[in-house]
Amino acid sequence: MNVSRRDLAAGAALLLGGCAALGATQALRAADKPLVIASQGSFFVGGEVKKSAPPMGPGAPFGDITVNQMYVQYQIPPHGDKHLPVVMVHGCCLSSKTWETTPDGRMGWSEYFVRKDRPVYLADQVSRARSGFDPSTFAAVKAGTAPASSLPNVISASHQLSWVLFRFGPSYPQAFPDGQFPVAAADELYKQMIPDLNALLPSPNPTLTNMAALAKQLKGAVLIGHSESGFFPQQAALLDPAGIRGMVTIEGQCPDLSAEQLATLARIPTLVMFGDHLSDVPTIIVSWQKTYEACDAYVHKVTAAGGDAQMMHLPKMGIRGNSHMLMQDKNNLQLADLILGWIDKHAERK
Amino acid sequence: MNVSRRDLAAGAALLLGGCAALGATQALRAADKPLVIASQGSFFVGGEVKKSAPPMGPGAPFGDITVNQMYVQYQIPPHGDKHLPVVMVHGCCLSSKTWETTPDGRMGWSEYFVRKDRPVYLADQVSRARSGFDPSTFAAVKAGTAPASSLPNVISASHQLSWVLFRFGPSYPQAFPDGQFPVAAADELYKQMIPDLNALLPSPNPTLTNMAALAKQLKGAVLIGHSESGFFPQQAALLDPAGIRGMVTIEGQCPDLSAEQLATLARIPTLVMFGDHLSDVPTIIVSWQKTYEACDAYVHKVTAAGGDAQMMHLPKMGIRGNSHMLMQDKNNLQLADLILGWIDKHAERK
Repeated sequence: MNVSRRDLAAGAALLLGGCAALGATQALRAADKPLVIASQGSFFVGGEVKKSAPPMGPGAPFGDITVNQMYVQYQIPPHGDKHLPVVMVHGCCLSSKTWETTPDGRMGWSEYFVRKDRPVYLADQVSRARSGFDPSTFAAVKAGTAPASSLPNVISASHQLSWVLFRFGPSYPQAFPDGQFPVAAADELYKQMIPDLNALLPSPNPTLTNMAALAKQLKGAVLIGHSESGFFPQQAALLDPAGIRGMVTIEGQCPDLSAEQLATLARIPTLVMFGDHLSDVPTIIVSWQKTYEACDAYVHKVTAAGGDAQMMHLPKMGIRGNSHMLMQDKNNLQLADLILGWIDKHAERK
Repeated sequence: MNVSRRDLAAGAALLLGGCAALGATQALRAADKPLVIASQGSFFVGGEVKKSAPPMGPGAPFGDITVNQMYVQYQIPPHGDKHLPVVMVHGCCLSSKTWETTPDGRMGWSEYFVRKDRPVYLADQVSRARSGFDPSTFAAVKAGTAPASSLPNVISASHQLSWVLFRFGPSYPQAFPDGQFPVAAADELYKQMIPDLNALLPSPNPTLTNMAALAKQLKGAVLIGHSESGFFPQQAALLDPAGIRGMVTIEGQCPDLSAEQLATLARIPTLVMFGDHLSDVPTIIVSWQKTYEACDAYVHKVTAAGGDAQMMHLPKMGIRGNSHMLMQDKNNLQLADLILGWIDKHAERK
């Protein structure tokens, strides 16, 4: 049997279901220009030893486990030393898959940023995906030593909820006529959506501490957060701003801050990006219009505090139809270029 | 600030803790020869829609979620079409991190296989890591609609247990004098160890179905399993052997099989590999000596059934001191070469 590289790439795209033709075309286009990597790998940031965790099975002793570590996967391109590293952190009910191949098989932001000479670090949030979670509460409830009420709220987003919350359309399964999300491949997005156990986490959320530590260990980095993690770059900076050279909030939530907090954040260049149709979906869990307004107010406050902050509300820039999943929308690389351009102008080392 | 690529690689290695010097040296060696990738990305295999999952939060409706999907991350090298793809599936309480950068910062099998021109596919087991898990039981117990006893046994391996079970030494924290595992970096292994929710899974385990489907979609692949997943290649082949061109069992458990099952498996080349010190650790959960003997008997039975099966018990080949974590041991690339050589000779397309 003779299978060519093209067959393999097409085969991988075919796995993606509904949008095989589109996926195959795009995957082959990417495959036609090899990706060169100076180094790649994975490691953990943070982590603490917890004593006397429940045993693995009959006859196994209680022992120590490690919790609150953050898994990070990275790729450094050959000219990566000319640019600031970029750390990407996914949102609720998702993993770093967010930034990889899109649901319809196109290139994601992680590879695109590497192809644009950026060292890219993808972090799975603590308590999610390859970072793992602390199993102690589940074991205690199962063993009857803790009440069922002590279980965390495990958050998972249904197809119907995601459709509206992520603004694919006004109601499931109706799509916006100008929508940028590849809705024909929505089933592939649903496979990315995994349970969120953040309710298990201590305060401050170890993901924040670990993001700040990672930026410092990299001797400077731009942090990008999305949705649930949209304000994580700022929250990390409030814990330790030393390594953070830029903060990019993609469709995040911006809380009220004290003058002192604003003064800290005003020292770091800030970009906030929102998509379209903010008022065109019913309010379930969040109102996107109010969320946008709070972030717009935040950008103005940072600017008033002497900071370099910018709001990119895409429809106001003539870019229409973007969903909440900007990094997976059909124009995702156009939006990546906006971020790359902003990093070059505002955050790169002087 | 001016940070070079060497600084960045060293910085990443420094994050790895105890073995910074070794890690930095090796990471730099890898970085000195760029890695060329024809295409890379990630996708899911399998997945089913489950109706009426618990809602995300107050005001959110019940809805459908997708469960039992398997996350797969791949890299295809420029000459990947000359070789069979290799699918690697991790063991208990671990993720695909197993195959990446070792705890002491050396190159893992996934990158090494790519550098040896193999298309490599890393799968996170269903219910683990980026594949996610079905949260329904946790939500039902929390809501009081199911008893605490319905919770799964969440399996996590403590430091003390891992040390002995993975044969780093006869008792924690004493190491074998000739041990190949980088025990000074054991803390980094502990961070890889995440809770195992396989007790939640239906039968057959969807990971098996998905592995068989992946091999078929790739038009032929070698499946590699380790420990908990050591016999998954065979179990996948018993469900659907069509795409499976080779089965590699790394320190797995080999059950008794019927003559019919053996006849099916005998059509696919088989390699089983075990490390050292099988009788030199106390029996907790498993006896490695008995596990090895069962697999040795399995190899003989497959051979008797006309199959091409081989046992590589490393000490018998003069390779001493290997732990259960062969792919992370100090001689991991030597062992990878053994597997690559076996694939070339026994499993490659004729």
